[in-house]
Amino acid sequence: MAPKTLNFITGNANKLTEVKAILGDVVDLQSQSLDLVEVQGTIDDISGDKCRRAAELVKGPVIVEDTCLCFNALKGLPGPYVKWFLYDIGLEGLNNLLAAYDDKSAQAICTFAYSEGPGKEIKIFQGTTDYQLEGHPDLVQQILPISKHHIRD
Amino acid sequence: MAPKTLNFITGNANKLTEVKAILGDVVDLQSQSLDLVEVQGTIDDISGDKCRRAAELVKGPVIVEDTCLCFNALKGLPGPYVKWFLYDIGLEGLNNLLAAYDDKSAQAICTFAYSEGPGKEIKIFQGTTDYQLEGHPDLVQQILPISKHHIRD
Repeated sequence: MAPKTLNFITGNANKLTEVKAILGDVVDLQSQSLDLVEVQGTIDDISGDKCRRAAELVKGPVIVEDTCLCFNALKGLPGPYVKWFLYDIGLEGLNNLLAAYDDKSAQAICTFAYSEGPGKEIKIFQGTTDYQLEGHPDLVQQILPISKHHIRD
Repeated sequence: MAPKTLNFITGNANKLTEVKAILGDVVDLQSQSLDLVEVQGTIDDISGDKCRRAAELVKGPVIVEDTCLCFNALKGLPGPYVKWFLYDIGLEGLNNLLAAYDDKSAQAICTFAYSEGPGKEIKIFQGTTDYQLEGHPDLVQQILPISKHHIRD
């Protein structure tokens, strides 16, 4: 049974607006900003771990979100580490990582992890969108927010 | 005061041999293999967090080690995430990340974090070695073990 209220763990007002647009009719979505360190690992490991710790802190139902950018020529990297690349080398730097490859295709993977509360099962929902980056540095910037609108289980 | 025994947290026999060669005369170095997840963040954050959790598990003095490969053209990335790149795209893939840049310089940063035990201060020791990667994919493989011999505080 769906909870009456759900805590979306984000400090980003835009993300909250987007998720409210999707879930606002079925649940009372509240936001909480927690300073949660992320682990290294697979996309599911990272989101699942963050969700588990958020549920323990909030002591109730939570949902967390992560967006990854995966270059196919780089076997899915930088993937969950894309934010460090974006901070350090920017959009042009991200595109430059593909300079050695003809394959400029990428996937934006948006992952939501949900838990009813502490110790409860973690459910992962993922949306994937394919892109072709053909020397347009600003396309990376477009991908990250866009991908959230393509959520499927 | 230095402890009589020190637990080096590694499952890697070669790393243990190397560290014993350096510290074997001053402390009884024992190895323990713990399945410790690493967090994302700065090099110091990652090593410090791992050391703190290792000290809690072992309930005694511990030392942990991480080696990063930092490309200067990429502002220090892939840095602490290098192992995921090595697993997924290999040595040639790592070199290819620099295809767009004339600057092929890199730093191997070897970080040790030490704690006397649970709740005690974490001390970080770091060794840095500069390299020039000029289209020699196998140089990356040489860097990671070599860097451990250049430890300074």
